[in-house]
Amino acid sequence: MAEEVSNKQIVLKDYVKGYPKESDMVLKTSIIKLKVPEDCHDAVLVKNLYLSCDPYMRNRMSKIEGSYVDSFTPGSPITGYGVARVVDSSHPNFKKGDLIWGIIGWEEYSLIKSTEALFKIQHTDIPLSYYTGILGMPGTTAYCGFYEVCSPKEGETVFISAASGAVGQLVGQFAKLLGCYVVGSAGSKDKVDLLKSKFGFDDAFNYKEEPDLNAALKRYFPNGIDIYFENVGGKMLDAVLLNMRNHGRIAACGMISQYNLEEPEGVRNLFCLVAKRIRMEGFLVFDYYHLYPKFSDMVVPLIRQGKISYVEDIAQGLESAPAALIGLFSGRNVGKQVVVVAHE
Amino acid sequence: MAEEVSNKQIVLKDYVKGYPKESDMVLKTSIIKLKVPEDCHDAVLVKNLYLSCDPYMRNRMSKIEGSYVDSFTPGSPITGYGVARVVDSSHPNFKKGDLIWGIIGWEEYSLIKSTEALFKIQHTDIPLSYYTGILGMPGTTAYCGFYEVCSPKEGETVFISAASGAVGQLVGQFAKLLGCYVVGSAGSKDKVDLLKSKFGFDDAFNYKEEPDLNAALKRYFPNGIDIYFENVGGKMLDAVLLNMRNHGRIAACGMISQYNLEEPEGVRNLFCLVAKRIRMEGFLVFDYYHLYPKFSDMVVPLIRQGKISYVEDIAQGLESAPAALIGLFSGRNVGKQVVVVAHE
Repeated sequence: MAEEVSNKQIVLKDYVKGYPKESDMVLKTSIIKLKVPEDCHDAVLVKNLYLSCDPYMRNRMSKIEGSYVDSFTPGSPITGYGVARVVDSSHPNFKKGDLIWGIIGWEEYSLIKSTEALFKIQHTDIPLSYYTGILGMPGTTAYCGFYEVCSPKEGETVFISAASGAVGQLVGQFAKLLGCYVVGSAGSKDKVDLLKSKFGFDDAFNYKEEPDLNAALKRYFPNGIDIYFENVGGKMLDAVLLNMRNHGRIAACGMISQYNLEEPEGVRNLFCLVAKRIRMEGFLVFDYYHLYPKFSDMVVPLIRQGKISYVEDIAQGLESAPAALIGLFSGRNVGKQVVVVAHE
Repeated sequence: MAEEVSNKQIVLKDYVKGYPKESDMVLKTSIIKLKVPEDCHDAVLVKNLYLSCDPYMRNRMSKIEGSYVDSFTPGSPITGYGVARVVDSSHPNFKKGDLIWGIIGWEEYSLIKSTEALFKIQHTDIPLSYYTGILGMPGTTAYCGFYEVCSPKEGETVFISAASGAVGQLVGQFAKLLGCYVVGSAGSKDKVDLLKSKFGFDDAFNYKEEPDLNAALKRYFPNGIDIYFENVGGKMLDAVLLNMRNHGRIAACGMISQYNLEEPEGVRNLFCLVAKRIRMEGFLVFDYYHLYPKFSDMVVPLIRQGKISYVEDIAQGLESAPAALIGLFSGRNVGKQVVVVAHE
């Protein structure tokens, strides 16, 4: 008989409209057998170690249809990227003790019946939590967004919004490694300091202290912006369009400023796309996971050699997960928001 | 001594704000010598035959700085694409009697000091006025916008706004020749009929009779739009974004619905670019004129074989040019708006 243990879970109460609250989620405790059921082929049972809080999860809290992600199921645990250790497996590619990253539940243990979205962790000399960020989905997002979508060239000017976040901080460093001029925006003095001191951005500014975003961008980019890595949307996008250079590129990764609005803000300066021959391209990391091995081969040595920095904001315990997720939308986190469920 | 003749000209009175009026332009008569001045090297003096009325000219009527085109000069003749015959030349590539198309003045005769923007007309078995449209700037725009920007594939679904205009009617026919499903929008019953009967669109609708553009697009594209050829901007773009398919492409050619507004409309559905991985790319024909010979080689046989249709709306006489230009913005023209200055 397999051991039965209690399993704390973070459950979504109901679909969310507008700004999400901690109380939209609730901690429940259920019971789980630490064994893949007999009739469950190609499945794994994992002990969850680290959870990733990512902006795209806001969309999953709403009732949505026909989007690129499914809604969470009210009454069931939230799911998201994380790091876990295999406790039991009926899948030939995974065995007990393996470390994986991919989509897991916001709970202590998860039975994962579809393993296509799991990656085996190869390098364990690197902090395991990094597989929720720099070596996980956000890192791959930064890599494919910058190298595959932005078509960057040495010497170009790059602007990144939400630049201290999990994706932004990496895009900026990739751009610096390539020899670009890089400026980021963020929402606090601490984050701005981090961009300049820790991540080596050429400059950075606090968008909340700029009454005129157009003027701010003109100050940092007197000759215009070649590449905009878009994480926020709305007013910032409108100001950026006015400051793009001819043949500029905008990689649209996310639009976090819009996710909690009943109706998104209107963007007025789209004619700039025509006049300046700008390419604006949305992308999703799911389309680029085939590049993960190439990305990993590039970034693992950079991490080991200290050529790339990475900052995490780590919350302790599954109980802290709802507050950590909500904090993303007020910009409370500094760096990649991670939740530790267990250390081993 | 060279002959001196009177030269009627259409002059812009002053920069225009908001909706332009015929009275923003005035007919003047000056005197011109039918000879390139002695000290004027590499210039041509031409007799103007056909003038082209194009939506982009609205932007040139305003005081603009740092855009892709210069403002017109108040007090001077309007300039634009047209067809002309060389009367005198000090340029080795042009001789008396040559037919050219390119940027000329809205006047009977023009001295053209910079000939880089002139193309020599090779095929004179085709109506000369076609070089203001299908074989000129709008034709090249349709060609590069569709083939170079849209990355079209057989069987894809294509939506074109302002579809009966000089560019739209050609894009639709190129798409049909490739085996796409093609729907266009236009602003009158006559234009809609033209799209279906003359240009072979699979379907077409009058956007003025659709209170809900989103619903209209869902009707014509139950499975979504792969390619949107954008000529209008604003509300139509917002509705199209909701109906694009994953990995769709939007070629932004123009946004005529916005040109006369004090402030452009806000477009709210840009997050669709991310969720559906859409590429939206602005382009200008100036960047693609090196493809003109390739385009001409493709389209001239199609015209001769009657495999491509082309509809012009021809206004007679230089005096009619202001009304013809203004008519573009109320959608009065049916097909390419041309002004005949002289027949030979």
